[in-house]
Amino acid sequence: MKFCSRCGGGIVRALPPNDTRHRHVCAACGAVHYENPRVVAGCIPEWNGRVLLCRRAIEPRAGLWNLPAGFMETGETVAETAVRETGEEANARVELLGLYSIMTLPHISQVYFMFRARLLDGEFSAGHETEEARLFEPDGIPWDQLAFPTVHHTLRFFVDDRTAGVYRFRIGDIVREGEGYGYRPGRDAGSGP
Amino acid sequence: MKFCSRCGGGIVRALPPNDTRHRHVCAACGAVHYENPRVVAGCIPEWNGRVLLCRRAIEPRAGLWNLPAGFMETGETVAETAVRETGEEANARVELLGLYSIMTLPHISQVYFMFRARLLDGEFSAGHETEEARLFEPDGIPWDQLAFPTVHHTLRFFVDDRTAGVYRFRIGDIVREGEGYGYRPGRDAGSGP
Repeated sequence: MKFCSRCGGGIVRALPPNDTRHRHVCAACGAVHYENPRVVAGCIPEWNGRVLLCRRAIEPRAGLWNLPAGFMETGETVAETAVRETGEEANARVELLGLYSIMTLPHISQVYFMFRARLLDGEFSAGHETEEARLFEPDGIPWDQLAFPTVHHTLRFFVDDRTAGVYRFRIGDIVREGEGYGYRPGRDAGSGP
Repeated sequence: MKFCSRCGGGIVRALPPNDTRHRHVCAACGAVHYENPRVVAGCIPEWNGRVLLCRRAIEPRAGLWNLPAGFMETGETVAETAVRETGEEANARVELLGLYSIMTLPHISQVYFMFRARLLDGEFSAGHETEEARLFEPDGIPWDQLAFPTVHHTLRFFVDDRTAGVYRFRIGDIVREGEGYGYRPGRDAGSGP
């Protein structure tokens, strides 16, 4: 950020009064420009026991498989985001069955909401940002060709829960772990007393 | 938004290729500036059966009572935000006991995370943006002097659950309803199968 979006003046890093962090502040008009984490929402769309994945046509991670998900827009609920993104990426209509996981990614300042869902009519095809959309059997998921750690951990939980016969809501964080990214359960965030 | 934060050029509203919404686009360098919903996190801090509320010293809603909560910063988890905000607004240290509610407010593009919590040592005082911090008995909560609909609905659920003896995680939306704002359960977002 180099210029003030309000007046066009030059931006400096400064600590506003009573603030705890340095911010982007306009040297001309004094406007403080905060940086905010972004919310991503998506789903695990099922059809006759198979899961719909999308192969990404765009960077980052072009060519790798993803669950339909994307950035929340202003004016939406997280559930609406998940349904809309599935429409855009896979031309598919879904009914959400329940919130399944919330994962915070502090290293890239994102909060992911993933829902369980079912396709309404079994119809789907590749959207603009998708090279190919395909249904996978749970034991045929391409684990070594998944696009993001959130997809990996969400699908891992999903397949395990499916085998166990009970789907459990999870909240936690995705954090750096050796060469990759691990899942850290939100020990501060278990639900219930 | 009038000026591009990257190059200082003038901003126009335009529909980028393959996009579904008009965005703030720089007429000079072509940068697309997205608007994103913001994440708020806070908690319901308890001490010996009483709940800690903060009377706001700043607008909006100066003079009204609030649960400690504030905007998530980059690089944080939602749990870290809740703990930090409680420190800043009430000079209180808390241990989080569990995620209690998630409420989306589409009319102002915010997503609220509220946790149950307990004060670690019973110490608290008014922070910079707080006029007064005070512990309230559940039957002494100033219902007609609460700052925001999220606080009202979260505390209402909390007091009801406390009476029932079981705390239930809730996810839903706060939406306009007559003169005020009502809570709409996330019918698409119940957890479990």
